[in-house]
Amino acid sequence: MNPGPHHCAAANATTALPPGLQVNGPRLLASLAALGEVGALPGGGVCRLALTDADRLGRDWTVARMHELGLRVTVDAMGNVVGHLAGEVDGPPVMTGSHIDTVRTGGLYDGNYGVLAGLEVVAALRDAGLRPKRPLAVAFFTNEEGARFQPDMMGSLVYVGGLPLATALATRDAEGLSVGDELQRVGYQGTAPVGQPAVDSFVELHIEQGPVLAQQGIQVGVVEGVQGISWTEFTLSGQSNHAGTTPMAMRHDAALVAAQVAVFVRGLTQRLGGRQLATVGALRLTPNLVNVIASQAVFTVDLRNTDAAVLAQAESEVLAFATQAAQAEGVQLRTRSLARFDPVAFDPLVVDLVQQQATALGCTQLRMPSGAGHDAQMLARVCPAGMIFVPSVDGLSHNVREHTEPADLVLGAQLLLQVMWALAHRNA
Amino acid sequence: MNPGPHHCAAANATTALPPGLQVNGPRLLASLAALGEVGALPGGGVCRLALTDADRLGRDWTVARMHELGLRVTVDAMGNVVGHLAGEVDGPPVMTGSHIDTVRTGGLYDGNYGVLAGLEVVAALRDAGLRPKRPLAVAFFTNEEGARFQPDMMGSLVYVGGLPLATALATRDAEGLSVGDELQRVGYQGTAPVGQPAVDSFVELHIEQGPVLAQQGIQVGVVEGVQGISWTEFTLSGQSNHAGTTPMAMRHDAALVAAQVAVFVRGLTQRLGGRQLATVGALRLTPNLVNVIASQAVFTVDLRNTDAAVLAQAESEVLAFATQAAQAEGVQLRTRSLARFDPVAFDPLVVDLVQQQATALGCTQLRMPSGAGHDAQMLARVCPAGMIFVPSVDGLSHNVREHTEPADLVLGAQLLLQVMWALAHRNA
Repeated sequence: MNPGPHHCAAANATTALPPGLQVNGPRLLASLAALGEVGALPGGGVCRLALTDADRLGRDWTVARMHELGLRVTVDAMGNVVGHLAGEVDGPPVMTGSHIDTVRTGGLYDGNYGVLAGLEVVAALRDAGLRPKRPLAVAFFTNEEGARFQPDMMGSLVYVGGLPLATALATRDAEGLSVGDELQRVGYQGTAPVGQPAVDSFVELHIEQGPVLAQQGIQVGVVEGVQGISWTEFTLSGQSNHAGTTPMAMRHDAALVAAQVAVFVRGLTQRLGGRQLATVGALRLTPNLVNVIASQAVFTVDLRNTDAAVLAQAESEVLAFATQAAQAEGVQLRTRSLARFDPVAFDPLVVDLVQQQATALGCTQLRMPSGAGHDAQMLARVCPAGMIFVPSVDGLSHNVREHTEPADLVLGAQLLLQVMWALAHRNA
Repeated sequence: MNPGPHHCAAANATTALPPGLQVNGPRLLASLAALGEVGALPGGGVCRLALTDADRLGRDWTVARMHELGLRVTVDAMGNVVGHLAGEVDGPPVMTGSHIDTVRTGGLYDGNYGVLAGLEVVAALRDAGLRPKRPLAVAFFTNEEGARFQPDMMGSLVYVGGLPLATALATRDAEGLSVGDELQRVGYQGTAPVGQPAVDSFVELHIEQGPVLAQQGIQVGVVEGVQGISWTEFTLSGQSNHAGTTPMAMRHDAALVAAQVAVFVRGLTQRLGGRQLATVGALRLTPNLVNVIASQAVFTVDLRNTDAAVLAQAESEVLAFATQAAQAEGVQLRTRSLARFDPVAFDPLVVDLVQQQATALGCTQLRMPSGAGHDAQMLARVCPAGMIFVPSVDGLSHNVREHTEPADLVLGAQLLLQVMWALAHRNA
């Protein structure tokens, strides 16, 4: 592999890992199990929605672990927590991190794995008596999941200046409780300046949350970027009528138009090919009765692509088709954007380093996009950033049956160690 | 019009209505308004679900009206109520009737109109001091709507022997209350033998409940029969997965297959043409989230046709398509029949008489099928039966805004009077 001129000395002699430096697999796995006990669900899995009591206990557990490892811990006004390890030189740290909040019926690995593997990197260096050249940092960001407060990736978005702190703190959950009040209640509205420390580079280790690596039997995903996401809600208003007495030509059937759009978007992915994804996952009919023509259909279209131009084309084609189909049926159409993120391309400095170190480890690997959103895409706004994926068994995530094989978990942490070491020792 | 040989003397000299015999329009309209006060909803419309207290009050009001008119009233063990008017000769009566139960948010005319117009026919004859040759009868049947107890048309189905009385009485509503217990509670489990009297012929007057007459500006529908109905519930079981991480080719999307079937059935009606109707009115996705591929879709297909063979073909084509579409997407398909009635063709004796008397009245008229089910289709199993439709404004029914213009209501009752008189005086 030729690393290319843009990061000419990324992997020179000074980045070589001290021979034999290994993460402690059993310790990593034990820490995942221990944090998984906090907010554990009766039948398996875990529920630690952001800023609940369970999240507080998870935070307390993780901060205690940071202290055990001798890290200096800072908490900012958004509740983002950073554990700092001094380097041989001062300056912005090489950061890793993720989140420890979960969805309501989550697994043990989504987010938690990235944070605890980061702490295992620190522990491994400590065991070996090694100090990195640049400082290191292990962070966990508030409310990545967005399951209680929207938007998701809120803490890292505020960290990089993409959302005003005051706006985030004023955000309320379905019961009217605000992020700010809940942060104070759980004791995690800290005093560190938001967005500090400035970050030298960022690498996040995460389970894939999709089936690609597992189905292909590949050990490591070298994540090149995050797909752009477009969520649109379509509301079709037709006319409710008796299914037995209304001739076909007199109908204004909102359900039919919704179905036509759902079929169209699948065809669109086939035409656009490549990495265009499209999903109609939510659909509600009114009055939703067997013998009544639907007066209203409300449904969502989730479009994703790594290519911003193709994503925009897909949005435009879906809207044009829906408009035409609604008109043909005499149905009114309204649309509302629920979310819109442009694709993110990770920095070749980090992406190529991940690939290079995976090669050094002898892993099978695949360069791939991330289908889900991650804190790393926010950090990519302020520093070179990238991600490492490990396989998700059956592609399951946001599911109590979320699972990654222990060997894959340990291998990913070892790769994280090597990538962070290389970043900390590269020539500036 | 040539009435044809099959009812050669249906309209001979003896059937001529005495000159000037007219229903009393204001009295008919007043009775509709009065019954509409029983169970009236605050904003308009009425709620008299079968065998509720409101239904009891509606029954009491109607039976009192029968007694006022000098009718002998019988109530059978199914709660079907018949008011008898003696004829010049003994024998099975010429019957009219319908129902007075309503859906939860019903109008004033569906069912009630047929019963009260029947009583107005009796009243008009009484005013004129006329006695028909054959006996007449005005009936209302229990639980036609099926909104509380299924199946619909239950009382008339039991009356003609299509459903065992014991089965009907054991039927329970959503709260576990049985038809039998509720009949006793409201005091309408009578002692008359079910299915008595045997019926000479039956004609039911009803609002169209569809838009055809109103849109075409036609006064009377000459109902030739009732469409066959096929309701099927389709359950598709796919695999829930992340919309952002699951490649299109790896999906088992239950929502997509449901949408494909909904689009297919619309196309099917265009191919089969004529009177084939098809509706996907109910659809529920699981988990029904914007960013999760649906693991399950449960939806209904409502197929109707006046032609039994074409209806069966439509059912078979929908099933074949759904099976193939489910297989292509790797989704499991189960189906369940929710309702199945073959088309009913009304007897030319009654159909042609309705057309002939409508012509005599100078009405614009249209021979048409009924899209909805009616008690007359049950009576058609045991005697010559038919129906008269009057227009529904905007085709609205099962709706508090259900409306028919007063002039159309009066005209329909006059036509009913003339048809019943003709049936009562035809040569056997």
